[in-house]
Amino acid sequence: MDIARTVVLHSVMETILPTSRHRILWSGLSLLSETGLSGVSLGLLAERVGISKSGLFAHFRSKEQLQIALLDQTVEVAAVHVILPAMQQPEGLPRLQAFVRRWLGWSARAGLRGGCPIAAALFELDDVEGPVRDRAVAMEGHWRGLLRQLVQQAVEQGHLRPDLDVEQFIWELCGIYLSHHASLRFLRDPNADARAYAAFDTLLRRSEGDGRETASCP
Amino acid sequence: MDIARTVVLHSVMETILPTSRHRILWSGLSLLSETGLSGVSLGLLAERVGISKSGLFAHFRSKEQLQIALLDQTVEVAAVHVILPAMQQPEGLPRLQAFVRRWLGWSARAGLRGGCPIAAALFELDDVEGPVRDRAVAMEGHWRGLLRQLVQQAVEQGHLRPDLDVEQFIWELCGIYLSHHASLRFLRDPNADARAYAAFDTLLRRSEGDGRETASCP
Repeated sequence: MDIARTVVLHSVMETILPTSRHRILWSGLSLLSETGLSGVSLGLLAERVGISKSGLFAHFRSKEQLQIALLDQTVEVAAVHVILPAMQQPEGLPRLQAFVRRWLGWSARAGLRGGCPIAAALFELDDVEGPVRDRAVAMEGHWRGLLRQLVQQAVEQGHLRPDLDVEQFIWELCGIYLSHHASLRFLRDPNADARAYAAFDTLLRRSEGDGRETASCP
Repeated sequence: MDIARTVVLHSVMETILPTSRHRILWSGLSLLSETGLSGVSLGLLAERVGISKSGLFAHFRSKEQLQIALLDQTVEVAAVHVILPAMQQPEGLPRLQAFVRRWLGWSARAGLRGGCPIAAALFELDDVEGPVRDRAVAMEGHWRGLLRQLVQQAVEQGHLRPDLDVEQFIWELCGIYLSHHASLRFLRDPNADARAYAAFDTLLRRSEGDGRETASCP
């Protein structure tokens, strides 16, 4: 193979590989969203993408490597649909509210046919050990860390009260997210959004500056 | 409590008259709890129980039939560990509180090695259609119906306020259960119980007779 041909081939590979990797990841994310991690296999994904299993093997050496790449991809897509638009809002309560409204039901708005892969992983990976679980735990930690920042900024801006138990706020907010996911996607309850917004509004009201939650009315 | 009595009676009968079906179901329930529905197969379960696959076939004609039987078994075990002890408490708030405290983390106390199979099914079966999902939806409906009865009794006894939005209360309580499951089993947070009890106590305080949640302090 002469040098020119090698350079051209390399250039073509550079152009094609990221694209095909992206195409594989998007197909895989859709599959993950529908079936959960246990439903994602190299064989099934190769079939969906329309490439050979060995072609897929060039990108991912194992099922675990593929699953981790898909979890990473989930966070990237969620970042585009949830984090970036929320960051356009002023720091404090407006940003926190924008984040939560974008977070609830984000997977459908992102074009995924199934639910949130991370929410499903919380229940699928609780009893297994290994690098996929480790990555998912780290991701959930990062996501909650981001929520912590947003809530703390709302406290610093005086939008939420200074003695707020930020960890408890986040814990309850995650419960609202999970209950919304279950009622929207599993029970297919048409009131899922309204219930989630009502719960979040109450959580905010309890956390506002007047400390109404713990104060006794005279 | 007709549903509760029926399932408890059925479960007690199964315990008194242990059959190979009962032994299979218990092994299957443990497997389901660890792996989720997608991990339950006739072959794997036959291996665990130590019988031939055709022997298992005499009890369950298909993977779906087995999965449905295991979901039924889950509710029966949950009834013994959650419903029955709660029913010993006086109607109203004491019974509701006993129910919730028994519900949180019930699967470990029932001797299951994994998490709550129904909680996992809420996220695993959201995007599939068929009889297994139908059964799980019906079960979740019955469970929420039972919660509704308990909350309504607490309202009738004057323990919770008469204008309480019972559906919203149940929706938020389910969020506490799911957040507890995720933090206890997935994140392995040692504060999971304390967070859940704090969230439930706040939910109760907001729902008590003085209507503190919505009233403005003068």
